[in-house]
Amino acid sequence: MNIAVMGCGTVGGGVVEIIDNRMDKGSNLKVTRILDKIFREGDNRFTDKIEDITEDDTIDLVVESMGGIEPAHTFILAALNAGKHVVTSNKAVVSKYMKEFVDAANDNSVGLFLEATAGGGVPWIHNLMRVKRIDQITQFSGIINGTSNFIIDKMEKENADFSETLKLAQEKGYAEANPSADIDGDDVKAKSMISASIAFSTLCTDEIPKSGIRNLTAEDIEVFKELGLRVRMITRGQIKGDKYFVTVEPQLCEENTLEANTPGYFNTVSLTGETIGELKFFGAGAGALPTANAIVQDIIDCADGKRPVYDLSRELEFDETIMPSTYLFRTKAEHSLPRQTIMIRPGYFEIGGKYPAEAHQIAENLLVVDPNSFMASIQKTV
Amino acid sequence: MNIAVMGCGTVGGGVVEIIDNRMDKGSNLKVTRILDKIFREGDNRFTDKIEDITEDDTIDLVVESMGGIEPAHTFILAALNAGKHVVTSNKAVVSKYMKEFVDAANDNSVGLFLEATAGGGVPWIHNLMRVKRIDQITQFSGIINGTSNFIIDKMEKENADFSETLKLAQEKGYAEANPSADIDGDDVKAKSMISASIAFSTLCTDEIPKSGIRNLTAEDIEVFKELGLRVRMITRGQIKGDKYFVTVEPQLCEENTLEANTPGYFNTVSLTGETIGELKFFGAGAGALPTANAIVQDIIDCADGKRPVYDLSRELEFDETIMPSTYLFRTKAEHSLPRQTIMIRPGYFEIGGKYPAEAHQIAENLLVVDPNSFMASIQKTV
Repeated sequence: MNIAVMGCGTVGGGVVEIIDNRMDKGSNLKVTRILDKIFREGDNRFTDKIEDITEDDTIDLVVESMGGIEPAHTFILAALNAGKHVVTSNKAVVSKYMKEFVDAANDNSVGLFLEATAGGGVPWIHNLMRVKRIDQITQFSGIINGTSNFIIDKMEKENADFSETLKLAQEKGYAEANPSADIDGDDVKAKSMISASIAFSTLCTDEIPKSGIRNLTAEDIEVFKELGLRVRMITRGQIKGDKYFVTVEPQLCEENTLEANTPGYFNTVSLTGETIGELKFFGAGAGALPTANAIVQDIIDCADGKRPVYDLSRELEFDETIMPSTYLFRTKAEHSLPRQTIMIRPGYFEIGGKYPAEAHQIAENLLVVDPNSFMASIQKTV
Repeated sequence: MNIAVMGCGTVGGGVVEIIDNRMDKGSNLKVTRILDKIFREGDNRFTDKIEDITEDDTIDLVVESMGGIEPAHTFILAALNAGKHVVTSNKAVVSKYMKEFVDAANDNSVGLFLEATAGGGVPWIHNLMRVKRIDQITQFSGIINGTSNFIIDKMEKENADFSETLKLAQEKGYAEANPSADIDGDDVKAKSMISASIAFSTLCTDEIPKSGIRNLTAEDIEVFKELGLRVRMITRGQIKGDKYFVTVEPQLCEENTLEANTPGYFNTVSLTGETIGELKFFGAGAGALPTANAIVQDIIDCADGKRPVYDLSRELEFDETIMPSTYLFRTKAEHSLPRQTIMIRPGYFEIGGKYPAEAHQIAENLLVVDPNSFMASIQKTV
């Protein structure tokens, strides 16, 4: 099987490394084209023209690991419409154009593979789809962003500030120069849309409320520790009858949970199925080789003849009332808090039975008055 | 696809339940025969003659969930030799006859499916084999026995005695009337042999040292807690060059690890691959529906045309020297301990750099003098 890799950065480079150097000699996988702006000297597979891929009939499968919306969107469609299977790690573009990509894959009878879009090296999408062969998925949750977890874990272990830890993460290459997608929840939201669409057989809305860790302080972490809790950046999705909801926010997890003890850039993701009960998957949420590994798994599946089927047809109502939670707010703007709020420590407030979008609205209001306010849901009432 | 189920107890009954009542209407899976001594009234699929299965050409696949060595061994071979695919949850018989079963499956060009032999509902074998498509597995470890974990967890949470907790587990149906396989490590050993054979592409020896939790006391758990540790029944397997080793024993895990916080009858199993790094899988290690789910996953794979390939050809030396550990002994027979031992609490002793079989031999010697002695490896030196 001849493969073209579009975008030869960290992840794409890892794919080339695994297929070139780490597969069994007997493997018939071969990277024959690489699309990138920067060429590797002496490697004549490099090109900067998409036509060298779409018009090359010897290429069976295209890996898209460029990231971003354009030209990734155009290139993925071009590859699908040229009758090539597509494997992508690009959660931003897939969450935005999932239906268009699925339709194009179906129209051209080719496979669209999404394992690497969520969870890095954690075999999350694969196992989610596998469980669905038997069970209805009733909920999913967990840590699906390695960068924010790296920052939180480092702050916890070294009693460090957010901004200095973010700088360190940027120096180490874990966080982008513009870190917003990772720390404000957009990356988790994109991965949640893909996960929810697959888990609940619906085209997940982009109206998922999201809140991030930008305002998390070393003192917050100390207070949470006193309460026996640790903060984690969490996605949660649930279905109940013909309603579903998904929310993205920091969550205070009890200190003995798997989530609270997920270190560094690792991810822990859980699902609940009707007969299988709860399953959890833990692994590297980022990194060149783990994410590249997820892509190569998709390539092998494709070579084995597997064609994933995405059923997005279920019509569900996006309704936050199926998912009430207890929320914590840390703010100096306590007069803007609703009346039922309880102060649990000076400056820290708790309120039970709030719906996610409602709680996120309270957080927005607080930020207007105190721009350093922080919000988290609480896994169990303190 | 027509299916026969041999052994309609907890797990086999769960398989019938899922296929009869819980699959999509579009599923073409059908249980057409059930072999058991006890018939269900009004269900004419029941039989007590194996020939009704092996000589019925309409049956494509046989589920063996009888447990035990005979007649399971004979019946599995008969099914394979009759050209039927076999899905089994029977770790005892597979660990003993793995090569014979694999050969018979190959000779008859049928599939042999083993997902449910290890880890209950945890998709362990499936993901182990999946990771192997790209990586060499360098090690695996974890909790793969739900019953012993249920007992330990209950003892920890309720400060309870071993014997009363075992009795409770028996009343609840989690432990057998003869609990030895679960509490002395035989069940973990059988699952470890299957896991190691698959992970390391070798026919794993049955010379795996094993030690159990029979002598664990409420006081032990208290002492471990003071040391920041929790005991878990653990398998560990490792490969280094052309040597491998596997050991089964209680292990003291740091209190914040996923293993230490695995509750009830749940399992947590880990593997390390060269490019994927560490992956962990958590789920129900026992129970009718989760284990039946694992069997039905195998059945669906078989219906999809999948035929697992087990490569047992690698010749490796079973050598404990690749796996030195620190061990803890609790005993009144301290004079029988080796000289390098350090007392860490009255009656509790630690020794570093011991090879597993060596440590298990020390434990055996201690038991002769103090039959209540207890041994555990230590995940990290206290």
